[in-house]
Amino acid sequence: MSPERFERIKQVLALRQPDLTLCMDQVHKGHNLSAAVRTADAVGIHEVHGVFPETGVRMRPHTAGGSLNWVKVHRHRTIQDAVAALRAQGMQIVVTNLSEQAKDFRDIDYTKPTALLVGQELQGISQEALDLADHQVVIPMLGMVQSLNVSVASALILYEAQRQRQLAGLYQHCRLPEVEQQRLLFERGY
Amino acid sequence: MSPERFERIKQVLALRQPDLTLCMDQVHKGHNLSAAVRTADAVGIHEVHGVFPETGVRMRPHTAGGSLNWVKVHRHRTIQDAVAALRAQGMQIVVTNLSEQAKDFRDIDYTKPTALLVGQELQGISQEALDLADHQVVIPMLGMVQSLNVSVASALILYEAQRQRQLAGLYQHCRLPEVEQQRLLFERGY
Ligand SMILES: C[S@@+](CC[C@H](N)C(=O)[O-])C[C@H]1O[C@@H](n2cnc3c(N)ncnc32)[C@H](O)[C@@H]1O
Ligand SMILES: C[S@@+](CC[C@H](N)C(=O)[O-])C[C@H]1O[C@@H](n2cnc3c(N)ncnc32)[C@H](O)[C@@H]1O
Repeated sequence: MSPERFERIKQVLALRQPDLTLCMDQVHKGHNLSAAVRTADAVGIHEVHGVFPETGVRMRPHTAGGSLNWVKVHRHRTIQDAVAALRAQGMQIVVTNLSEQAKDFRDIDYTKPTALLVGQELQGISQEALDLADHQVVIPMLGMVQSLNVSVASALILYEAQRQRQLAGLYQHCRLPEVEQQRLLFERGY
Repeated sequence: MSPERFERIKQVLALRQPDLTLCMDQVHKGHNLSAAVRTADAVGIHEVHGVFPETGVRMRPHTAGGSLNWVKVHRHRTIQDAVAALRAQGMQIVVTNLSEQAKDFRDIDYTKPTALLVGQELQGISQEALDLADHQVVIPMLGMVQSLNVSVASALILYEAQRQRQLAGLYQHCRLPEVEQQRLLFERGY
């Protein structure tokens, strides 16, 4: 490994946001999952979560743009298990819902530890996920189409989180525990 | 057609932004093109533009979520032709470029008549497109991955335009010419 590459990995680890994550509830298309992981990496997300169909989801390394080596995907058996794990990390649970009751996605404070839950391509978010949420959010839709692609919707909300966190200075000092940083540098850097 | 449907179409036409558009420079994957058209519809874009590979691009109606009936796709032979058509409509040309020289995408005024140019999945934007631009913009990338999926990048910039236009009141009165509105209501509404 070149010293430049080592430096670059160190810099990226210094921007990681361990208290921001995405959780996918039954997303089943490989290219959506892969595009979402790629965007997660781009805003500094370190680990994503998901409950996936039993038949599995095929990752698309090309669509993921190399992010699969850098963002860990945690699989959970049920959405209840996933949310329990996220709550144990002190996260607020923000769930997308294409509904009148949901707030505009820009009106949430994403500088708090936050897990964003997005739903399945056809069915949308499950009732179980809604029941576990602190906040429901929606992206305004001004056209004829009822919903956005799930990887697009995830990106819009994650980049709103990035905007808020940038303003709040959360990318200014390293937020991964030192041990974790060293472990990753050691594992990936050699 | 039910009176409810007719009302809904009228409402959507009243939100259309004829002075905002997306132009795709050689985007060649059907699902990216289709997802981009879907998002364009969602922010009130009425017509999109593109220069497509000679082999053609297959639209994916499912990924497009029904938007193909509502957003017209104009095909141009070259990017020069496309930009000439957009300039004739008085638009500023904002081009994405993964470069140090590009401005943060949030630092552009999208309330002006604007065409956003995005590039090909592998090659990115062409030099020809860059040469024609008024502004170059980039979405900040804080991870290991070098670029976002093109439909994701388009969505992030178009929703920044939506945010600015909402604040500026550009969705508050109908901006399509009356004749165009009547034509669409007549064509699609019956
Ligand atoms: C294609 S949509 C699902 C559509 C489904 N018919 C429904 O009613 O939810 C897939 C996922 O993308 C996300 N999504 C799509 N459009 C959204 C919007 N406008 N606001 C918030 N989330 C959205 C949600 O997570 C949703 O579960
Ligand atoms: C996968 S990228 C192309 C990557 C190509 N290797 C390059 O260097 O441009 C496809 C298109 O998505 C858009 N895009 C992707 N990431 C972007 C970012 N961070 N900022 C602005 N546009 C981006 C651009 O329009 C780009 O041409």
